[in-house]
Amino acid sequence: MKPEGKLMRALVYDKKLELQPNYPLHYTANEALIRVTMAGICNTDIEITRGYMKFTGIPGHEFIGIVEKANNTELIGRRITGEINCACHECDYCLNNLSNHCPNRSVLGILNHNGAFADYISVPEENLHIVPDSISDEEAVFIEPLAAAFEIFEQVNISENDMVVVLGDGKLGLLIAQVIALKTKHLTVIGKHHNKLQILDKPGINTIHLNETTDIEADIVIEATGSSSGLSMAIDTVRPKGTIVLKTTIAGYQNINLSKVVVNEITITGSRCGPFKPAIEALASKSVAVLPLISKIYTIDEALEAFEFASKPGVLKVLLKF
Amino acid sequence: MKPEGKLMRALVYDKKLELQPNYPLHYTANEALIRVTMAGICNTDIEITRGYMKFTGIPGHEFIGIVEKANNTELIGRRITGEINCACHECDYCLNNLSNHCPNRSVLGILNHNGAFADYISVPEENLHIVPDSISDEEAVFIEPLAAAFEIFEQVNISENDMVVVLGDGKLGLLIAQVIALKTKHLTVIGKHHNKLQILDKPGINTIHLNETTDIEADIVIEATGSSSGLSMAIDTVRPKGTIVLKTTIAGYQNINLSKVVVNEITITGSRCGPFKPAIEALASKSVAVLPLISKIYTIDEALEAFEFASKPGVLKVLLKF
Repeated sequence: MKPEGKLMRALVYDKKLELQPNYPLHYTANEALIRVTMAGICNTDIEITRGYMKFTGIPGHEFIGIVEKANNTELIGRRITGEINCACHECDYCLNNLSNHCPNRSVLGILNHNGAFADYISVPEENLHIVPDSISDEEAVFIEPLAAAFEIFEQVNISENDMVVVLGDGKLGLLIAQVIALKTKHLTVIGKHHNKLQILDKPGINTIHLNETTDIEADIVIEATGSSSGLSMAIDTVRPKGTIVLKTTIAGYQNINLSKVVVNEITITGSRCGPFKPAIEALASKSVAVLPLISKIYTIDEALEAFEFASKPGVLKVLLKF
Repeated sequence: MKPEGKLMRALVYDKKLELQPNYPLHYTANEALIRVTMAGICNTDIEITRGYMKFTGIPGHEFIGIVEKANNTELIGRRITGEINCACHECDYCLNNLSNHCPNRSVLGILNHNGAFADYISVPEENLHIVPDSISDEEAVFIEPLAAAFEIFEQVNISENDMVVVLGDGKLGLLIAQVIALKTKHLTVIGKHHNKLQILDKPGINTIHLNETTDIEADIVIEATGSSSGLSMAIDTVRPKGTIVLKTTIAGYQNINLSKVVVNEITITGSRCGPFKPAIEALASKSVAVLPLISKIYTIDEALEAFEFASKPGVLKVLLKF
């Protein structure tokens, strides 16, 4: 990273979260410099402020912006978003099309790389995706989490006859539900917030409140509760020989019973980042609606207040505008 | 079940394990009646005496015997073993070739069906497999657990270039190791008993004691430790995007960290009963050696002593001879 001599506003985490008005702008020669126009606060960002990944620096990995500097001059001035894994391109994972799992990678705003909660972010050029004008800034910040929803299709074969259950009505659960609905009508979302589940009424997705009884036996269960009780519920909801896609990153499961996983030969697949292309296409074609997931938009100068609000129960996506 | 008027020796579990010299012999008209000649004590049997599956009756599901009665008269007098899941043949699972997961099934010696620790066992005819004379009684009792090892090939594609780690040097781990060795030479077994690991020296399988340090990153890890610490070790041993086959049936995992499963997109597949045909072929062709796994052979009259011995740490397979 070389200093550009310029200063910028940046939300910095180092033991505590702080808005710094005069943070030095850095970017590396082999990366593009992006002027951020909007960014989204993800649960991972909130976890970072609680010590997750021991990250220090500028968090933020859901963003849209304008390219100001790039080696590929055709990118300059374009409206882009960026994939978050910055890979080495030399290891076995990178050479086998698994660069998202490169052991030498940095990750925007999560691991050894500053993120998007600042006026500028530096991103490897190959990570950039041009965003069509038909997608607004407010929608574009959802491309990264929506890609994580599309990752499920890369891992599990879902056919139109499969009975799928999505557990969780948080931001990710609501995105996943809409993505799964593109493949099968036999979809039920189980959540604990009536107001969040109602967002799925318009796209015509069947929902059940956690307190309602159900005897669904699903072929595939997507666990996106963000809660340590979610996996047990998934195990109880999936049929023998069925598949659980695990999206929840929980450090400590207490007293979890996996004997049913063995007896019923259940498969559990962890699922993280996904492909940006289908996410961009889904937003451009309006086949997924993300605007109802926005709880509030703050300016970057109100970032601390935005983080506090985003941490409250019941709140969905909080955006930062630059 | 109709009483045959005859009496037999039977090991019966009902709150406690008891050898009954005059247990009434029953068999159902649509099942074959087998005179048991040898049976093996499995960890599941020991778990049953601790309350597992709330089973009451005659345990035992690893056996060899002679058919005395059957509707198919060609079976009478033949030397057979039997699959343990007795399916309904009418449900969706049965109609889709998943009868091992039939929700209406009984399971020999485990669920609603008497097992093999008795002079006679009644078994559905379609569950029977004729055992070639080249396989001794002592070897034949390993067909059922060996089939459970072959189940892994039904679930996970293992190629000769895959790096596989088997965790656990118990009975099942030692069988699995020999089965996996049929597919890949890149195999390491990690265990905590030098004397058990030494059994794998003859078939030329690489072993490591748990206390030795290793930085293996396996494509596939088979977790067969029977211990609650096994899954965490499997997660730490498998590469990103790798597969863990879970054979250990543990009710309560305490404080297990599954975040790496999500971040590294690991797949965990539960694995239980398997196909008998390849297990019988492997024993007939001597490509798997099971006799070194026998710790001791008791008579059925010494069954209580045999159970006590089988429960001791360090003991491998204990057989009951009739």
